[in-house]
Amino acid sequence: MIRFRLTKIAESLPATVPFVGPETQERARGLRFDARLGANESVFGPSPSAVRAMAETPQWMYGDPESYDLRHALAHHLGTSADTIMVGEGIDSLLANLVRLFVAQGDAVVTSDGAYPTFNYHVAGFGGIVHKVPYKQDFEDLAALFDKAREVDAKLVYLSNPDNPMGTVHSGSDIAAALDALPSGTLLVLDEAYLECAPETSAVPVAYDDPRVIRLRTFSKAYGLAGARVGYAIGHADVIAAFNKVRNHFGMNRSAQEGALAALSDQTWLRSVVARITSSRLRIGKIATSCGLKPIKSATNFVAIDCCRDNAFASRVMEEMLAQGIFVRMPMVAPLNRCVRISCGTPADLDLLAEVLPEALRRAEKG
Amino acid sequence: MIRFRLTKIAESLPATVPFVGPETQERARGLRFDARLGANESVFGPSPSAVRAMAETPQWMYGDPESYDLRHALAHHLGTSADTIMVGEGIDSLLANLVRLFVAQGDAVVTSDGAYPTFNYHVAGFGGIVHKVPYKQDFEDLAALFDKAREVDAKLVYLSNPDNPMGTVHSGSDIAAALDALPSGTLLVLDEAYLECAPETSAVPVAYDDPRVIRLRTFSKAYGLAGARVGYAIGHADVIAAFNKVRNHFGMNRSAQEGALAALSDQTWLRSVVARITSSRLRIGKIATSCGLKPIKSATNFVAIDCCRDNAFASRVMEEMLAQGIFVRMPMVAPLNRCVRISCGTPADLDLLAEVLPEALRRAEKG
Repeated sequence: MIRFRLTKIAESLPATVPFVGPETQERARGLRFDARLGANESVFGPSPSAVRAMAETPQWMYGDPESYDLRHALAHHLGTSADTIMVGEGIDSLLANLVRLFVAQGDAVVTSDGAYPTFNYHVAGFGGIVHKVPYKQDFEDLAALFDKAREVDAKLVYLSNPDNPMGTVHSGSDIAAALDALPSGTLLVLDEAYLECAPETSAVPVAYDDPRVIRLRTFSKAYGLAGARVGYAIGHADVIAAFNKVRNHFGMNRSAQEGALAALSDQTWLRSVVARITSSRLRIGKIATSCGLKPIKSATNFVAIDCCRDNAFASRVMEEMLAQGIFVRMPMVAPLNRCVRISCGTPADLDLLAEVLPEALRRAEKG
Repeated sequence: MIRFRLTKIAESLPATVPFVGPETQERARGLRFDARLGANESVFGPSPSAVRAMAETPQWMYGDPESYDLRHALAHHLGTSADTIMVGEGIDSLLANLVRLFVAQGDAVVTSDGAYPTFNYHVAGFGGIVHKVPYKQDFEDLAALFDKAREVDAKLVYLSNPDNPMGTVHSGSDIAAALDALPSGTLLVLDEAYLECAPETSAVPVAYDDPRVIRLRTFSKAYGLAGARVGYAIGHADVIAAFNKVRNHFGMNRSAQEGALAALSDQTWLRSVVARITSSRLRIGKIATSCGLKPIKSATNFVAIDCCRDNAFASRVMEEMLAQGIFVRMPMVAPLNRCVRISCGTPADLDLLAEVLPEALRRAEKG
């Protein structure tokens, strides 16, 4: 038998994937999905000017390793300085590097039980210990998170606001107030992937370079550029600079940099998408309600639908939807996993949902 | 003063970059370069069918985390199985993950003194120790590399073939023969970024799944897709599977996956590019020779030009070329750093080179 000399940590890790991709499922079923509503992508797509910018970018040149233009445009847009911003290959990549910078073997982090598994994946990948606190009535529990951080001396505490997978949101002022209880040695990793879909009051009213917080944002959700892989971190200049110690400096796709830049300058498109997200959320809610289910109020581009039974039932509902051509996902941990999570779709996608969901429920009842 | 609780390794690392990008230099000089011949990009660009495929790819969908189609197309092209192939965001990203899998704090690796600094950057980033052996007459020294690997019990030994920055190449059969001396606990990291530019005899005639070797290849060089960030590793299925323990599963840009797939199927374009590379290499050689310099025979898409004096002189030559609008780089370590490295260019690029180089030499003589 061949033995490769992996590190002890690598040896101990499973060869896993935080999420199975829809293409993998399509290959398994031998059929494409008719509606792709499982990964919180934006079916409304990116700004046409972003599409144009990407198509016009010469592909033979490496991207600018500083993402200078994009960082400066973001800084201008936000009203902060460019040294508080780091651009990376999506929030996942920024999370990986952030965890690598802070978490050595045995170091503690805190998150909510059922929150974004990719954070946990990276923490495990560097030998860290993930401590979890439960959701509180489908909201991430700020007090419990920060209390636990103190208890375990956490390097990082992860909070998504708005939350994924439940779609709930805290007001920014509640988070700012809760920050008083954040231990001084803990950095709040605030995942704001869905912020553009949320009420304006969801942004946390503390300075962008507040050393207690690093915010993670993305062009993958409301901006409609999931395939391009562009995320950014905003935080204290010292933390932002630390990424330069470990990141893949030439990792950014050049046309993605140009696409994000164009997307950012088309705020009219963003507003129109957010309006379509809002109306799509409403319609998903109505479809669910008409089937006797309970949509959870969402500040994101998806709706978690409480199937009002146990996990086994919700799983059957999801499986039936998948079998009938609608790609959806569900939370993986109790009590969240009584829900099915449905991303916003086009009117045609939701017509299909309205047709498929009642039948999926009927079959799940029998199952 | 604010103190962030970075890991000990992160604390010890400089915030550095293996290479300064040309855009950074352009911003500093307030002027664009007229010819971009410093990063071994392909000025001849990618296959038009790749450009078309990328423009047609919907950007709102995440890429397939398995890169299934691309891995299978590569497997078919190479005559190996898909489980011996891992696709990643360029060779740099694959190197980072490979080092992460194998190198824990204090672990030894071996490379050549002056070879690819990004490998060293990643080893340092995980607390590993880089041992270096000198080049031998501008070639990487196979026997010295493998001897040193045995001496320091190296986890990895890095070899680029063809070599960067010198452009020299070993025959594949020489490498295969040298493998007999590779210690059984050492994995050979064979960086074949420039293989498509080299004679066919440069490929190493051992099985793709030979457990002693992992090969790294890319669409960034002859395929002309540096901006897209697509590389791949070929090796034993167990090593390839190990990437799934740590990689950013959703890190691949979707249109880059499609572009690479299209580029791979246009081997006619690849051959035409390689022909242009060959003639560009010849002309760079002639220009250098006519200035009294010595071009080093190259199997890549660049030529290292021996300026036949010391490092200070070669540096002045490079600075003068930069000042006159030609982006070039040079090796960073003696004795390689008596050279300036010039990537293949279009006829117009090389007209400019023919004009600028004699003047740059005159000024460097005075300097």
